[in-house]
Amino acid sequence: MKIINGGVTAPKGFQAIGIAAGIKKGKKDMAMLYSEAPCAAAGTFTTNVVKAAPVKWDQNIVYHQETAQAVVMNSGIANACTGTEGYGYCEETAKAAAKLLNLDPLQVLTASTGVIGKQLPMDVIKTGIETMVPMLSHSEAAGTLAAEAIMTTDTKKKEIAVQFELGGKTVTIGGMSKGSGMIHPNMCTMLAFITTDAAISKELLQKALSGSVQDSYNMISVDGDTSTNDTCLLMANGLAGNQKIKEEDQGYQTFKEALDYVNTWLAKHMAADGEGATALFEVKVIGAESKEQAVILSKSIITSNLVKAAICGHDANWGRILCAMGYSGAQFDPEKVDLYFESAAGKLKIIENGVDTGYSEEEATKILSEKEITAIADVKMGEDCAVAWGCDLTHEYVSINADYRS
Amino acid sequence: MKIINGGVTAPKGFQAIGIAAGIKKGKKDMAMLYSEAPCAAAGTFTTNVVKAAPVKWDQNIVYHQETAQAVVMNSGIANACTGTEGYGYCEETAKAAAKLLNLDPLQVLTASTGVIGKQLPMDVIKTGIETMVPMLSHSEAAGTLAAEAIMTTDTKKKEIAVQFELGGKTVTIGGMSKGSGMIHPNMCTMLAFITTDAAISKELLQKALSGSVQDSYNMISVDGDTSTNDTCLLMANGLAGNQKIKEEDQGYQTFKEALDYVNTWLAKHMAADGEGATALFEVKVIGAESKEQAVILSKSIITSNLVKAAICGHDANWGRILCAMGYSGAQFDPEKVDLYFESAAGKLKIIENGVDTGYSEEEATKILSEKEITAIADVKMGEDCAVAWGCDLTHEYVSINADYRS
Repeated sequence: MKIINGGVTAPKGFQAIGIAAGIKKGKKDMAMLYSEAPCAAAGTFTTNVVKAAPVKWDQNIVYHQETAQAVVMNSGIANACTGTEGYGYCEETAKAAAKLLNLDPLQVLTASTGVIGKQLPMDVIKTGIETMVPMLSHSEAAGTLAAEAIMTTDTKKKEIAVQFELGGKTVTIGGMSKGSGMIHPNMCTMLAFITTDAAISKELLQKALSGSVQDSYNMISVDGDTSTNDTCLLMANGLAGNQKIKEEDQGYQTFKEALDYVNTWLAKHMAADGEGATALFEVKVIGAESKEQAVILSKSIITSNLVKAAICGHDANWGRILCAMGYSGAQFDPEKVDLYFESAAGKLKIIENGVDTGYSEEEATKILSEKEITAIADVKMGEDCAVAWGCDLTHEYVSINADYRS
Repeated sequence: MKIINGGVTAPKGFQAIGIAAGIKKGKKDMAMLYSEAPCAAAGTFTTNVVKAAPVKWDQNIVYHQETAQAVVMNSGIANACTGTEGYGYCEETAKAAAKLLNLDPLQVLTASTGVIGKQLPMDVIKTGIETMVPMLSHSEAAGTLAAEAIMTTDTKKKEIAVQFELGGKTVTIGGMSKGSGMIHPNMCTMLAFITTDAAISKELLQKALSGSVQDSYNMISVDGDTSTNDTCLLMANGLAGNQKIKEEDQGYQTFKEALDYVNTWLAKHMAADGEGATALFEVKVIGAESKEQAVILSKSIITSNLVKAAICGHDANWGRILCAMGYSGAQFDPEKVDLYFESAAGKLKIIENGVDTGYSEEEATKILSEKEITAIADVKMGEDCAVAWGCDLTHEYVSINADYRS
C-alpha cells in the first residue's frame, strides 16, 4: 500500500466540487461528490437519539437501496432538530441534484453540518446544486475544494488517498472528513466521505466500514459531545476492475487494511485539529485483560477536561490520568499501573505500580511541549490494548464555543 | 425550619478550627472538627476505583465503628495514589490527634484534598495538629476558619446552618463543603462535613445521608471528573436532647428535610463556585417517565462542554441542549420536547415540540446574562422530574487547570 496525493477524487470515476453558495458569509459551504458508475454504499451514523434529517435520509438509502451515486453536502447549518420540514428539505435537495445528474433521488445522499435548529435556505441550496453540477471534476483540486467546503471550525482540510494492488489491478481509496467540535463519535464521526474504485459487495463494504470505524473515528474525542449529524459514508464504484470481493479472503483483508489506514489517518487529524487544540494527545492502554477494558480506559482519559487542560499547560499531572481511569467504569488495580509520557522529545516513566517514580519534571515538561504527545498506561492484567486520540483543552476552545452562532 | 448563622459549630457540642500549617504557601490548609460527645457517623464516598487513602481510612471507621468524634482535614495535597505509605499517614494523623484529644485513633476521621500523587509532609501535619487542638472553639468564627481552610481553587467558603424543632427540642444541623474542580460526584462530593446535635441511630443517619446526597451532591457537575477523594461525612452527637430517632417516623422526616436543605444548599454553591464559573446553571427535566430518566437527561446537559461554553457566551444555542439529551443514553422523542430558559430577567419558551419557537434572541441573551440561569426541558412522557446544577465553561477554567500544580 502506498500513500498518494489527493482525496475523494483519487479513485477512478469519482468527481467532486466545493463552492461558496452563500449559506456562510464569504466561505465555501457546499460540496458535491459524484460517481460515474453506481456505487455500493455503506454508512455508519450517529447513535444520538436526536438524529439530523440528512442522517435519517441517508440511513434509508444505505439500508434499503442497492446503490447510490452522489452526495450533496453543506456546512453552516446542520439540518438537525428541524422536524418534518427539515426532512422534506433533504428530499428536495436530492431531487434537485438527481434531476441534473439524471439519477433517481434515492441515489443521492445528503449531509449537513453546522448550527442545530435552523432550517436550510432551500433557494440557496438549489442554486448551489445548479452551480456545482457543471463544475464537477476528476481533478485533485476539485477534491480539495470539496474537503474545504465541508469545514466548519476546522482549521485544516483533511483528505488522504492510498493505493494498493488487488489481483493485478490497482485499487484506490480516497477520503475526506471534517470535525473539530462536538466530537465524541459513537458509531462514526461528524462527516467523513470515503471513495473507492474497488469492486466489492455491499455487505462486505458495510462490514469493512463498521469494523474500521470502531478503531478510528470511535476512538477520538474532542469534547465528549456526540453529534446529531455523525455520518461516515463509503462508496465503491468497482471501476478499478478487480475481481469483485465477495468473501472475507485475502483481497478483503488487503482492502480492509487500506481502509483502516485511511480512516485512522482522518480520525487522528480530526483530533489534532480539535477546536482550539495545540496538541494531538494519543493514549495507549496496554496490558489490558480485554479490548473492551482498554477502550473504556483510553477513552476516559482522552475525554477528561482536567487531563486535557493539563496537556494544554504541558503539566505532567498524572494523578488526573489515574483519576480518569478510576471513574471510567472499568476495573483495575491502581497500585499496579505504570504510566509513561512519550513524544518526539523522548520517553519517560512517570509512575510505577501506581506511585510516582521521582521523574524529572523538567524532562516531562519538555516531552509534553511537543505537538504530538502519547501517554501509555500499562494495567498489567493481560495482553489487550487500545489507542485513543484527543487534544488539549484551551482558552481557544472556550472562545470558539462561547459564541459559535454569531 | 429556619436558617441561622454559622456552619459546623452551630450544633451543640461541636468545635472547629482552621489554620495555615504550611502545606500551601501563605494560605490556610489544615482544619479540625471535634465533638464533645461521641457521634454516630455516616459517610458517603467516591465510587472512583482510585480511592484516596483518607477515603479508605474513613470507610473503615464509618462502616465498622459505632462512633467517631473528630476529623482532621488538609487541603493542598490529596493523599491519593500514595500507596501504603499514604495510608500509613492517615493512621499517623489520627494517632497524633487522638493522643491530644484523649480518643481512640479509630474515632478520628481524616480528609484530604489537593494534588494527587504527592505524599503528605507528616512533620507539618503533626505540628498543625498540635497547633490546632488548643485552638478548637465553639465559635461561629472557628467554624468559618475551618470552612476556609479546606478550600483549594474555591473562591468562596461554603457553610450553612439550619434549626428546627423535634419533640419540643431545638435541633441544629451545620455544614461546610469545598469543591470547585474535579466535580462530578458519584455517591458524594469532594469534601462535605455536616454536623448535628440530633439524637439519631447510626443506621438512620446513614440512610438519611445516602438518600440526601442523591438529590444534592450527586446532581452537580463542574467538569465531569469524579474525584478520588469525594467524601461526605455526617456526625450526630445527640446533645440536642431530642428523643432518639430510631425509626422512619415524622421526626425522621423532619430531620431528613432539614438535611436535604443543607446538602442541596452546599451542592448548589459548589456548582456556582465551579472553577472559572461566572454563572450557576440549573437544569430541570420535567414530564419524564421516571426519575432515573430525568436524572440522566439533566446530568447529560449540565456536563456538556458545548452547552457550558454557550452559557458562558450568553448564547441560546438550544441545539446543543437537545444534542446532549440525545446522547445521554435515555430514550425520548426529540420532536415532543419543549425547552425554556429562565432567570431573574424572565422566562422564555425557546423550542416547542422540538422546533424553534421563533423567540427573540435579544430577550434570550438578556435572560442568559444573569448569574443564575435555569433551563427547563419538558419531555412530555410522564410526571417525574429532576434538577441538576452545573456552571459555565470559561477561559478561567482552562487557566486554572492548565497549570494547577505550579
